[in-house]
Amino acid sequence: MATQELGGGSLLIAWQLKNKRVLIVGGGQVASGRIESILVADANIILISPKDGLTSRTKLLLEEYPTRITYKNRVFLGPEDLVGIDMVLTAIDDVEKSREIYQLSREAKIPINVADIPDACDFYFGSQVRDGPLQIMISTNGDSPRMAAMIRQRIERCLGGYEGEAVKKAGALRSKLKERAPGVGGKVGKKRMRWMIDICNAWEMEDFTVLDDELIKRLLDEGWEKNRVPKLADIGGSRDKPTIAASPATFVPYAVGAIVGAIGCAFAYRR
Amino acid sequence: MATQELGGGSLLIAWQLKNKRVLIVGGGQVASGRIESILVADANIILISPKDGLTSRTKLLLEEYPTRITYKNRVFLGPEDLVGIDMVLTAIDDVEKSREIYQLSREAKIPINVADIPDACDFYFGSQVRDGPLQIMISTNGDSPRMAAMIRQRIERCLGGYEGEAVKKAGALRSKLKERAPGVGGKVGKKRMRWMIDICNAWEMEDFTVLDDELIKRLLDEGWEKNRVPKLADIGGSRDKPTIAASPATFVPYAVGAIVGAIGCAFAYRR
Repeated sequence: MATQELGGGSLLIAWQLKNKRVLIVGGGQVASGRIESILVADANIILISPKDGLTSRTKLLLEEYPTRITYKNRVFLGPEDLVGIDMVLTAIDDVEKSREIYQLSREAKIPINVADIPDACDFYFGSQVRDGPLQIMISTNGDSPRMAAMIRQRIERCLGGYEGEAVKKAGALRSKLKERAPGVGGKVGKKRMRWMIDICNAWEMEDFTVLDDELIKRLLDEGWEKNRVPKLADIGGSRDKPTIAASPATFVPYAVGAIVGAIGCAFAYRR
Repeated sequence: MATQELGGGSLLIAWQLKNKRVLIVGGGQVASGRIESILVADANIILISPKDGLTSRTKLLLEEYPTRITYKNRVFLGPEDLVGIDMVLTAIDDVEKSREIYQLSREAKIPINVADIPDACDFYFGSQVRDGPLQIMISTNGDSPRMAAMIRQRIERCLGGYEGEAVKKAGALRSKLKERAPGVGGKVGKKRMRWMIDICNAWEMEDFTVLDDELIKRLLDEGWEKNRVPKLADIGGSRDKPTIAASPATFVPYAVGAIVGAIGCAFAYRR
Protein backbone atom coordinates (compact mmCIF):
# COMPACT_ATOMS: atom_id res chain seq x y z
CA MET A 1 0.00 0.00 0.00
CA ALA A 2 1.23 3.47 -0.87
CA THR A 3 0.92 5.03 2.56
CA GLN A 4 2.66 8.24 1.53
CA GLU A 5 0.00 8.70 -1.11
CA LEU A 6 -2.83 9.13 1.38
CA GLY A 7 -2.91 12.91 1.70
CA GLY A 8 -2.67 16.19 -0.17
CA GLY A 9 -5.77 15.62 -2.26
CA SER A 10 -9.44 16.46 -2.41
CA LEU A 11 -12.53 14.28 -2.25
CA LEU A 12 -13.74 14.00 -5.83
CA ILE A 13 -17.48 13.44 -5.82
CA ALA A 14 -20.53 13.61 -8.08
CA TRP A 15 -22.85 16.03 -6.28
CA GLN A 16 -26.54 15.36 -6.83
CA LEU A 17 -28.57 18.44 -7.71
CA LYS A 18 -31.61 17.02 -9.48
CA ASN A 19 -34.50 19.45 -8.82
CA LYS A 20 -32.39 21.37 -6.29
CA ARG A 21 -32.12 25.17 -6.29
CA VAL A 22 -28.74 26.71 -7.00
CA LEU A 23 -28.04 30.43 -6.55
CA ILE A 24 -25.53 31.90 -8.97
CA VAL A 25 -24.38 35.46 -8.24
CA GLY A 26 -22.79 37.11 -11.26
CA GLY A 27 -23.42 37.01 -15.00
CA GLY A 28 -19.97 37.15 -16.59
CA GLN A 29 -17.81 34.56 -18.32
CA VAL A 30 -17.20 32.45 -15.21
CA ALA A 31 -20.90 32.59 -14.32
CA SER A 32 -21.93 31.32 -17.77
CA GLY A 33 -19.68 28.29 -17.29
CA ARG A 34 -21.24 27.70 -13.87
CA ILE A 35 -24.74 27.95 -15.35
CA GLU A 36 -23.92 25.22 -17.87
CA SER A 37 -22.46 22.93 -15.20
CA ILE A 38 -25.56 23.38 -13.05
CA LEU A 39 -27.95 22.80 -15.96
CA VAL A 40 -26.06 19.57 -16.69
CA ALA A 41 -26.82 18.50 -13.12
CA ASP A 42 -30.57 19.02 -13.64
CA ALA A 43 -30.88 21.74 -11.02
CA ASN A 44 -32.92 24.94 -11.18
CA ILE A 45 -31.00 28.20 -11.13
CA ILE A 46 -31.64 31.54 -9.50
CA LEU A 47 -29.32 33.97 -11.27
CA ILE A 48 -28.68 37.30 -9.56
CA SER A 49 -26.81 39.94 -11.58
CA PRO A 50 -27.46 43.43 -12.90
CA LYS A 51 -28.36 43.20 -16.60
CA ASP A 52 -25.34 45.24 -17.67
CA GLY A 53 -23.13 42.52 -16.13
CA LEU A 54 -24.44 39.76 -18.38
CA THR A 55 -22.22 38.42 -21.16
CA SER A 56 -23.81 37.40 -24.47
CA ARG A 57 -23.25 33.77 -23.50
CA THR A 58 -25.18 34.25 -20.25
CA LYS A 59 -27.98 36.08 -22.10
CA LEU A 60 -28.19 33.19 -24.58
CA LEU A 61 -28.53 30.67 -21.74
CA LEU A 62 -31.27 32.77 -20.15
CA GLU A 63 -33.16 32.70 -23.46
CA GLU A 64 -32.62 28.97 -23.98
CA TYR A 65 -33.63 27.89 -20.47
CA PRO A 66 -36.37 30.30 -19.37
CA THR A 67 -38.09 27.65 -17.23
CA ARG A 68 -34.94 26.45 -15.48
CA ILE A 69 -33.28 29.80 -14.80
CA THR A 70 -35.01 32.46 -12.70
CA TYR A 71 -33.26 35.74 -13.46
CA LYS A 72 -33.13 38.65 -11.04
CA ASN A 73 -31.81 41.89 -12.52
CA ARG A 74 -30.17 43.21 -9.36
CA VAL A 75 -27.30 42.70 -6.91
CA PHE A 76 -27.28 40.18 -4.02
CA LEU A 77 -29.30 41.73 -1.19
CA GLY A 78 -28.75 39.51 1.85
CA PRO A 79 -29.84 36.40 3.80
CA GLU A 80 -33.29 36.52 2.17
CA ASP A 81 -31.62 35.56 -1.14
CA LEU A 82 -30.42 32.30 0.47
CA VAL A 83 -33.83 31.05 1.59
CA GLY A 84 -34.57 27.63 0.05
CA ILE A 85 -31.18 27.53 -1.71
CA ASP A 86 -29.22 24.25 -1.81
CA MET A 87 -25.93 25.55 -3.23
CA VAL A 88 -24.32 28.93 -3.90
CA LEU A 89 -21.86 29.86 -6.65
CA THR A 90 -20.52 33.39 -6.86
CA ALA A 91 -18.51 34.84 -9.73
CA ILE A 92 -18.27 38.58 -9.16
CA ASP A 93 -15.30 40.93 -8.98
CA ASP A 94 -16.35 42.43 -5.64
CA VAL A 95 -14.15 40.54 -3.14
CA GLU A 96 -15.83 42.10 -0.10
CA LYS A 97 -19.30 41.19 -1.36
CA SER A 98 -18.06 37.69 -2.19
CA ARG A 99 -16.81 37.17 1.36
CA GLU A 100 -20.08 38.49 2.76
CA ILE A 101 -22.05 35.94 0.68
CA TYR A 102 -19.60 33.26 1.81
CA GLN A 103 -20.15 34.08 5.49
CA LEU A 104 -23.94 34.08 5.11
CA SER A 105 -23.82 30.74 3.24
CA ARG A 106 -21.58 29.16 5.88
CA GLU A 107 -23.95 30.28 8.62
CA ALA A 108 -26.85 28.75 6.68
CA LYS A 109 -24.70 25.64 6.03
CA ILE A 110 -25.19 25.94 2.28
CA PRO A 111 -22.26 24.62 0.20
CA ILE A 112 -20.57 27.48 -1.65
CA ASN A 113 -17.90 28.12 -4.26
CA VAL A 114 -16.55 31.65 -4.54
CA ALA A 115 -14.66 32.05 -7.81
CA ASP A 116 -11.01 33.07 -7.35
CA ILE A 117 -11.14 32.97 -3.52
CA PRO A 118 -10.11 29.39 -2.64
CA ASP A 119 -10.36 29.89 1.12
CA ALA A 120 -14.01 30.85 0.59
CA CYS A 121 -14.85 27.56 -1.15
CA ASP A 122 -16.31 24.32 0.20
CA PHE A 123 -15.43 22.76 -3.16
CA TYR A 124 -13.59 23.47 -6.40
CA PHE A 125 -14.37 22.82 -10.01
CA GLY A 126 -11.97 20.98 -12.28
CA SER A 127 -11.38 20.38 -15.95
CA GLN A 128 -14.15 18.20 -17.34
CA VAL A 129 -14.99 15.84 -20.17
CA ARG A 130 -18.58 14.94 -20.86
CA ASP A 131 -20.01 12.43 -23.32
CA GLY A 132 -23.66 11.73 -22.58
CA PRO A 133 -23.96 10.06 -19.18
CA LEU A 134 -20.17 9.76 -18.96
CA GLN A 135 -18.48 12.53 -16.99
CA ILE A 136 -14.78 12.77 -16.24
CA MET A 137 -13.20 15.36 -13.97
CA ILE A 138 -9.51 16.19 -13.80
CA SER A 139 -8.20 17.99 -10.73
CA THR A 140 -4.62 19.02 -9.99
CA ASN A 141 -5.63 20.26 -6.54
CA GLY A 142 -4.68 23.77 -7.53
CA ASP A 143 -1.15 22.89 -8.65
CA SER A 144 -1.74 23.56 -12.34
CA PRO A 145 -5.16 24.31 -13.83
CA ARG A 146 -3.49 24.59 -17.23
CA MET A 147 -2.12 21.04 -16.98
CA ALA A 148 -5.56 19.84 -15.88
CA ALA A 149 -6.88 21.21 -19.18
CA MET A 150 -4.01 19.58 -21.11
CA ILE A 151 -4.65 16.22 -19.44
CA ARG A 152 -8.34 16.62 -20.28
CA GLN A 153 -7.43 17.04 -23.95
CA ARG A 154 -5.18 13.99 -23.72
CA ILE A 155 -8.00 11.92 -22.22
CA GLU A 156 -10.41 13.11 -24.92
CA ARG A 157 -7.93 12.00 -27.57
CA CYS A 158 -7.47 8.54 -26.02
CA LEU A 159 -11.20 7.90 -25.76
CA GLY A 160 -12.85 6.30 -28.78
CA GLY A 161 -15.78 8.71 -28.83
CA TYR A 162 -18.27 5.86 -28.37
CA GLU A 163 -17.87 5.45 -24.58
CA GLY A 164 -20.74 7.76 -23.73
CA GLU A 165 -23.08 5.88 -26.06
CA ALA A 166 -21.85 2.53 -24.68
CA VAL A 167 -22.46 3.69 -21.11
CA LYS A 168 -25.94 4.89 -22.11
CA LYS A 169 -26.85 1.53 -23.67
CA ALA A 170 -25.41 -0.35 -20.68
CA GLY A 171 -27.67 1.79 -18.52
CA ALA A 172 -30.66 0.93 -20.72
CA LEU A 173 -29.80 -2.75 -20.41
CA ARG A 174 -29.63 -2.44 -16.64
CA SER A 175 -33.01 -0.77 -16.37
CA LYS A 176 -34.65 -3.40 -18.59
CA LEU A 177 -32.97 -6.06 -16.46
CA LYS A 178 -34.42 -4.45 -13.34
CA GLU A 179 -37.90 -4.54 -14.85
CA ARG A 180 -37.49 -8.29 -15.23
CA ALA A 181 -35.80 -8.89 -11.89
CA PRO A 182 -36.96 -6.06 -9.60
CA GLY A 183 -35.77 -5.35 -6.08
CA VAL A 184 -32.96 -3.20 -4.72
CA GLY A 185 -29.87 -4.75 -3.18
CA GLY A 186 -29.95 -8.19 -1.58
CA LYS A 187 -29.60 -11.47 -3.49
CA VAL A 188 -31.29 -10.36 -6.71
CA GLY A 189 -29.32 -7.10 -6.72
CA LYS A 190 -26.05 -8.98 -6.37
CA LYS A 191 -27.05 -11.46 -9.11
CA ARG A 192 -27.97 -8.60 -11.48
CA MET A 193 -24.69 -6.81 -10.73
CA ARG A 194 -22.70 -10.01 -11.29
CA TRP A 195 -24.39 -10.66 -14.65
CA MET A 196 -23.90 -7.06 -15.80
CA ILE A 197 -20.21 -7.26 -14.88
CA ASP A 198 -19.86 -10.55 -16.78
CA ILE A 199 -21.43 -8.98 -19.88
CA CYS A 200 -19.21 -5.89 -19.61
CA ASN A 201 -16.15 -8.13 -19.31
CA ALA A 202 -17.18 -10.40 -22.19
CA TRP A 203 -18.12 -7.63 -24.64
CA GLU A 204 -16.06 -4.96 -26.33
CA MET A 205 -17.26 -1.64 -24.93
CA GLU A 206 -18.09 -0.54 -28.48
CA ASP A 207 -20.43 -3.56 -28.87
CA PHE A 208 -22.88 -1.89 -26.49
CA THR A 209 -23.39 1.03 -28.87
CA VAL A 210 -25.42 -1.11 -31.30
CA LEU A 211 -27.86 -2.36 -28.64
CA ASP A 212 -31.48 -1.46 -29.36
CA ASP A 213 -34.70 -2.55 -27.64
CA GLU A 214 -34.91 -5.74 -29.72
CA LEU A 215 -31.29 -6.75 -29.06
CA ILE A 216 -31.66 -5.92 -25.36
CA LYS A 217 -34.75 -8.14 -25.21
CA ARG A 218 -32.84 -10.98 -26.91
CA LEU A 219 -29.83 -10.50 -24.63
CA LEU A 220 -32.06 -10.81 -21.56
CA ASP A 221 -33.95 -13.81 -23.02
CA GLU A 222 -30.81 -15.67 -24.10
CA GLY A 223 -28.52 -14.41 -21.36
CA TRP A 224 -30.17 -13.44 -18.08
CA GLU A 225 -33.07 -15.93 -18.30
CA LYS A 226 -30.77 -18.82 -19.20
CA ASN A 227 -28.02 -17.68 -16.85
CA ARG A 228 -25.59 -17.34 -19.74
CA VAL A 229 -23.29 -14.63 -21.12
CA PRO A 230 -23.87 -14.45 -24.90
CA LYS A 231 -21.70 -12.36 -27.21
CA LEU A 232 -23.18 -9.68 -29.45
CA ALA A 233 -23.08 -12.03 -32.45
CA ASP A 234 -24.87 -14.74 -30.46
CA ILE A 235 -27.95 -12.52 -30.24
CA GLY A 236 -27.79 -11.56 -33.91
CA GLY A 237 -26.12 -8.18 -33.41
CA SER A 238 -23.15 -6.87 -35.38
CA ARG A 239 -21.01 -3.79 -35.26
CA ASP A 240 -20.93 -3.03 -39.01
CA LYS A 241 -22.16 0.54 -38.72
CA PRO A 242 -19.50 3.19 -38.14
CA THR A 243 -18.60 4.10 -34.60
CA ILE A 244 -20.64 6.91 -33.10
CA ALA A 245 -18.15 9.75 -32.96
CA ALA A 246 -18.44 12.19 -30.10
CA SER A 247 -19.17 15.65 -31.44
CA PRO A 248 -16.50 18.10 -30.28
CA ALA A 249 -19.37 20.48 -29.72
CA THR A 250 -20.25 18.33 -26.74
CA PHE A 251 -16.95 19.09 -25.13
CA VAL A 252 -16.47 22.74 -26.00
CA PRO A 253 -18.88 24.42 -23.57
CA TYR A 254 -17.62 22.19 -20.77
CA ALA A 255 -14.02 22.78 -21.76
CA VAL A 256 -14.60 26.50 -21.49
CA GLY A 257 -16.46 26.22 -18.22
CA ALA A 258 -13.87 23.76 -16.97
CA ILE A 259 -10.84 25.91 -17.74
CA VAL A 260 -12.56 28.90 -16.21
CA GLY A 261 -13.54 26.72 -13.26
CA ALA A 262 -9.99 25.46 -12.96
CA ILE A 263 -8.71 29.02 -12.89
CA GLY A 264 -11.17 29.55 -10.05
CA CYS A 265 -9.15 27.17 -7.91
CA ALA A 266 -5.78 28.09 -9.33
CA PHE A 267 -4.56 29.41 -6.00
CA ALA A 268 -5.75 26.47 -3.90
CA TYR A 269 -3.20 25.01 -1.49
CA ARG A 270 -0.66 27.57 -2.61
CA ARG A 271 -1.44 30.07 0.12
CA MET B 1 -23.84 24.68 -28.58
CA ALA B 2 -25.09 21.21 -27.61
CA THR B 3 -28.28 22.25 -25.88
CA GLN B 4 -29.58 18.69 -25.56
CA GLU B 5 -26.45 17.84 -23.63
CA LEU B 6 -27.27 20.14 -20.74
CA GLY B 7 -28.98 17.68 -18.40
CA GLY B 8 -28.92 14.18 -16.98
CA GLY B 9 -25.60 14.58 -15.22
CA SER B 10 -24.12 15.36 -11.84
CA LEU B 11 -21.97 18.23 -10.66
CA LEU B 12 -18.46 16.80 -10.45
CA ILE B 13 -16.52 18.70 -7.80
CA ALA B 14 -13.39 18.48 -5.67
CA TRP B 15 -14.71 18.74 -2.10
CA GLN B 16 -12.29 20.36 0.35
CA LEU B 17 -11.88 18.48 3.61
CA LYS B 18 -8.52 19.65 4.90
CA ASN B 19 -8.67 19.47 8.72
CA LYS B 20 -12.42 18.76 8.59
CA ARG B 21 -14.04 15.99 10.61
CA VAL B 22 -15.66 13.12 8.71
CA LEU B 23 -17.81 10.50 10.40
CA ILE B 24 -17.63 7.04 8.86
CA VAL B 25 -20.15 4.49 10.16
CA GLY B 26 -19.16 0.91 9.38
CA GLY B 27 -15.86 -0.96 9.17
CA GLY B 28 -16.25 -3.34 6.26
CA GLN B 29 -14.84 -3.41 2.74
CA VAL B 30 -16.75 -0.33 1.53
CA ALA B 31 -15.81 1.57 4.70
CA SER B 32 -12.10 0.85 4.19
CA GLY B 33 -12.31 2.37 0.72
CA ARG B 34 -14.05 5.42 2.17
CA ILE B 35 -11.37 5.77 4.86
CA GLU B 36 -8.67 5.88 2.17
CA SER B 37 -10.56 8.49 0.13
CA ILE B 38 -11.00 10.67 3.22
CA LEU B 39 -7.36 10.32 4.29
CA VAL B 40 -6.37 11.41 0.77
CA ALA B 41 -8.44 14.57 1.34
CA ASP B 42 -6.50 15.41 4.54
CA ALA B 43 -9.52 15.12 6.82
CA ASN B 44 -9.71 13.59 10.26
CA ILE B 45 -11.92 10.57 10.65
CA ILE B 46 -14.25 9.40 13.41
CA LEU B 47 -14.89 5.72 12.70
CA ILE B 48 -17.86 4.13 14.42
CA SER B 49 -18.17 0.34 14.15
CA PRO B 50 -18.21 -2.65 16.49
CA LYS B 51 -14.77 -4.30 16.45
CA ASP B 52 -16.13 -7.56 15.05
CA GLY B 53 -17.30 -5.63 11.98
CA LEU B 54 -13.79 -4.46 11.03
CA THR B 55 -12.09 -6.02 8.01
CA SER B 56 -8.33 -6.62 8.12
CA ARG B 57 -7.91 -3.70 5.71
CA THR B 58 -9.79 -1.38 8.06
CA LYS B 59 -7.74 -2.63 11.04
CA LEU B 60 -4.54 -1.97 9.10
CA LEU B 61 -5.65 1.61 8.38
CA LEU B 62 -6.47 2.15 12.06
CA GLU B 63 -2.94 1.00 12.95
CA GLU B 64 -1.29 3.12 10.24
CA TYR B 65 -3.18 6.35 11.00
CA PRO B 66 -3.76 6.36 14.78
CA THR B 67 -3.59 10.17 14.96
CA ARG B 68 -5.96 10.80 12.05
CA ILE B 69 -8.60 8.17 12.81
CA THR B 70 -10.53 8.21 16.09
CA TYR B 71 -12.03 4.77 16.49
CA LYS B 72 -15.18 4.07 18.50
CA ASN B 73 -15.89 0.38 19.10
CA ARG B 74 -19.70 0.67 19.11
CA VAL B 75 -22.75 1.31 16.94
CA PHE B 76 -24.05 4.77 15.93
CA LEU B 77 -25.98 6.16 18.91
CA GLY B 78 -27.77 9.29 17.69
CA PRO B 79 -27.58 13.05 17.06
CA GLU B 80 -24.73 13.39 19.58
CA ASP B 81 -22.51 11.47 17.15
CA LEU B 82 -23.02 14.22 14.55
CA VAL B 83 -21.84 17.12 16.72
CA GLY B 84 -18.92 18.93 15.03
CA ILE B 85 -19.05 16.63 12.00
CA ASP B 86 -18.57 18.10 8.51
CA MET B 87 -19.47 15.04 6.42
CA VAL B 88 -21.04 11.63 7.03
CA LEU B 89 -20.36 8.37 5.14
CA THR B 90 -22.21 5.22 6.12
CA ALA B 91 -21.44 1.71 4.89
CA ILE B 92 -23.50 -0.68 6.99
CA ASP B 93 -25.95 -3.43 6.04
CA ASP B 94 -28.71 -2.10 8.31
CA VAL B 95 -30.96 -0.17 5.88
CA GLU B 96 -33.20 1.17 8.65
CA LYS B 97 -30.23 2.46 10.64
CA SER B 98 -28.75 3.95 7.47
CA ARG B 99 -31.95 5.89 6.77
CA GLU B 100 -32.06 7.09 10.37
CA ILE B 101 -28.51 8.44 10.08
CA TYR B 102 -29.46 10.03 6.76
CA GLN B 103 -32.44 11.81 8.31
CA LEU B 104 -30.41 13.12 11.24
CA SER B 105 -27.66 14.33 8.87
CA ARG B 106 -30.14 16.09 6.62
CA GLU B 107 -31.67 17.86 9.62
CA ALA B 108 -28.17 18.94 10.70
CA LYS B 109 -27.42 19.91 7.05
CA ILE B 110 -24.35 17.69 7.00
CA PRO B 111 -23.53 16.25 3.55
CA ILE B 112 -23.98 12.48 3.57
CA ASN B 113 -23.40 9.42 1.38
CA VAL B 114 -25.19 6.23 2.33
CA ALA B 115 -23.64 3.28 0.51
CA ASP B 116 -26.11 1.38 -1.69
CA ILE B 117 -29.03 3.75 -1.01
CA PRO B 118 -28.78 6.39 -3.79
CA ASP B 119 -31.85 8.32 -2.67
CA ALA B 120 -30.13 8.80 0.69
CA CYS B 121 -27.05 10.42 -0.85
CA ASP B 122 -26.14 14.08 -1.35
CA PHE B 123 -23.28 12.85 -3.53
CA TYR B 124 -21.86 9.72 -5.13
CA PHE B 125 -18.36 8.37 -5.49
CA GLY B 126 -16.93 7.37 -8.84
CA SER B 127 -14.04 5.42 -10.26
CA GLN B 128 -10.80 7.27 -9.57
CA VAL B 129 -7.23 7.61 -10.76
CA ARG B 130 -4.66 9.28 -8.54
CA ASP B 131 -1.07 10.17 -9.28
CA GLY B 132 0.33 12.57 -6.70
CA PRO B 133 -1.60 15.87 -6.86
CA LEU B 134 -3.39 14.68 -10.01
CA GLN B 135 -6.83 13.21 -9.40
CA ILE B 136 -9.22 11.99 -12.07
CA MET B 137 -12.79 10.86 -11.43
CA ILE B 138 -14.94 8.90 -13.83
CA SER B 139 -18.70 8.92 -13.33
CA THR B 140 -21.34 7.20 -15.45
CA ASN B 141 -24.10 8.76 -13.37
CA GLY B 142 -25.16 5.31 -12.24
CA ASP B 143 -25.53 3.87 -15.73
CA SER B 144 -22.61 1.47 -15.47
CA PRO B 145 -20.15 1.42 -12.58
CA ARG B 146 -18.33 -1.42 -14.30
CA MET B 147 -17.74 0.69 -17.42
CA ALA B 148 -16.55 3.54 -15.20
CA ALA B 149 -13.89 1.16 -13.90
CA MET B 150 -13.02 0.05 -17.45
CA ILE B 151 -12.71 3.65 -18.63
CA ARG B 152 -10.52 4.36 -15.59
CA GLN B 153 -8.19 1.55 -16.68
CA ARG B 154 -8.18 2.95 -20.22
CA ILE B 155 -7.26 6.40 -18.93
CA GLU B 156 -4.48 4.93 -16.75
CA ARG B 157 -3.08 3.20 -19.84
CA CYS B 158 -3.14 6.36 -21.96
CA LEU B 159 -1.37 8.45 -19.34
CA GLY B 160 2.42 8.47 -19.47
CA GLY B 161 2.84 7.92 -15.74
CA TYR B 162 4.76 11.19 -15.35
CA GLU B 163 1.73 13.53 -15.28
CA GLY B 164 1.45 13.55 -11.49
CA GLU B 165 5.13 14.45 -11.14
CA ALA B 166 4.80 17.12 -13.84
CA VAL B 167 1.79 18.64 -12.08
CA LYS B 168 3.69 18.60 -8.77
CA LYS B 169 6.67 20.43 -10.29
CA ALA B 170 4.39 22.93 -12.03
CA GLY B 171 2.85 23.57 -8.63
CA ALA B 172 6.32 24.08 -7.11
CA LEU B 173 7.15 26.54 -9.90
CA ARG B 174 3.93 28.46 -9.24
CA SER B 175 4.59 28.77 -5.52
CA LYS B 176 8.15 29.99 -6.13
CA LEU B 177 6.75 32.45 -8.67
CA LYS B 178 4.28 33.70 -6.07
CA GLU B 179 7.10 34.28 -3.59
CA ARG B 180 8.73 36.57 -6.17
CA ALA B 181 5.52 38.25 -7.31
CA PRO B 182 3.08 38.04 -4.38
CA GLY B 183 -0.53 39.15 -4.34
CA VAL B 184 -3.76 37.29 -5.07
CA GLY B 185 -5.78 38.04 -8.22
CA GLY B 186 -5.62 41.44 -9.88
CA LYS B 187 -2.97 42.50 -12.38
CA VAL B 188 -0.07 40.51 -10.92
CA GLY B 189 -2.25 37.41 -10.57
CA LYS B 190 -3.27 37.63 -14.24
CA LYS B 191 0.34 38.18 -15.33
CA ARG B 192 1.50 35.14 -13.30
CA MET B 193 -1.29 33.01 -14.75
CA ARG B 194 -0.48 34.16 -18.29
CA TRP B 195 3.22 33.34 -17.88
CA MET B 196 2.49 29.91 -16.35
CA ILE B 197 0.13 29.12 -19.24
CA ASP B 198 2.80 30.21 -21.76
CA ILE B 199 5.36 27.93 -20.10
CA CYS B 200 2.89 25.00 -20.01
CA ASN B 201 2.15 25.54 -23.72
CA ALA B 202 5.82 25.88 -24.70
CA TRP B 203 7.09 22.86 -22.72
CA GLU B 204 6.42 19.17 -23.07
CA MET B 205 4.54 18.11 -19.95
CA GLU B 206 7.30 15.60 -19.26
CA ASP B 207 9.88 18.43 -19.22
CA PHE B 208 8.46 19.62 -15.90
CA THR B 209 9.43 16.36 -14.17
CA VAL B 210 13.13 17.28 -14.23
CA LEU B 211 12.63 20.67 -12.56
CA ASP B 212 14.51 21.07 -9.28
CA ASP B 213 15.04 24.14 -7.07
CA GLU B 214 18.05 25.25 -9.13
CA LEU B 215 16.28 24.92 -12.47
CA ILE B 216 13.17 26.63 -11.08
CA LYS B 217 15.35 29.53 -9.92
CA ARG B 218 16.96 29.78 -13.36
CA LEU B 219 13.59 29.58 -15.09
CA LEU B 220 12.28 32.46 -12.99
CA ASP B 221 15.50 34.49 -13.48
CA GLU B 222 15.65 33.93 -17.26
CA GLY B 223 11.92 33.73 -17.89
CA TRP B 224 9.71 35.62 -15.48
CA GLU B 225 12.19 38.40 -14.66
CA LYS B 226 13.02 39.00 -18.32
CA ASN B 227 9.42 38.45 -19.45
CA ARG B 228 10.50 35.57 -21.67
CA VAL B 229 9.46 31.93 -22.12
CA PRO B 230 12.66 29.84 -22.19
CA LYS B 231 12.64 26.14 -23.09
CA LEU B 232 14.04 23.52 -20.70
CA ALA B 233 17.31 23.39 -22.64
CA ASP B 234 17.63 27.20 -22.49
CA ILE B 235 17.95 26.96 -18.69
CA GLY B 236 20.41 24.08 -18.87
CA GLY B 237 17.94 21.31 -18.13
CA SER B 238 17.63 18.06 -20.05
CA ARG B 239 15.32 15.10 -19.94
CA ASP B 240 17.94 12.35 -20.18
CA LYS B 241 16.87 10.47 -17.09
CA PRO B 242 14.13 7.86 -17.58
CA THR B 243 10.53 8.88 -17.18
CA ILE B 244 9.17 8.62 -13.67
CA ALA B 245 6.82 5.66 -13.99
CA ALA B 246 3.70 5.70 -11.86
CA SER B 247 3.69 2.71 -9.54
CA PRO B 248 0.55 0.65 -10.05
CA ALA B 249 0.50 0.41 -6.26
CA THR B 250 -0.57 4.05 -6.30
CA PHE B 251 -3.70 3.18 -8.20
CA VAL B 252 -4.69 -0.14 -6.64
CA PRO B 253 -6.15 1.01 -3.31
CA TYR B 254 -8.04 3.78 -5.05
CA ALA B 255 -9.21 1.40 -7.78
CA VAL B 256 -10.65 -0.89 -5.13
CA GLY B 257 -12.25 1.93 -3.21
CA ALA B 258 -13.47 3.45 -6.44
CA ILE B 259 -15.12 0.31 -7.76
CA VAL B 260 -16.72 -0.28 -4.39
CA GLY B 261 -17.74 3.36 -4.33
CA ALA B 262 -19.09 3.09 -7.86
CA ILE B 263 -21.15 0.07 -6.87
CA GLY B 264 -22.50 2.24 -4.08
CA CYS B 265 -24.21 4.43 -6.64
CA ALA B 266 -24.94 1.65 -9.10
CA PHE B 267 -28.66 2.18 -8.78
CA ALA B 268 -28.64 5.94 -9.15
CA TYR B 269 -31.10 7.40 -11.65
CA ARG B 270 -32.38 3.91 -12.41
CA ARG B 271 -35.22 3.98 -9.89
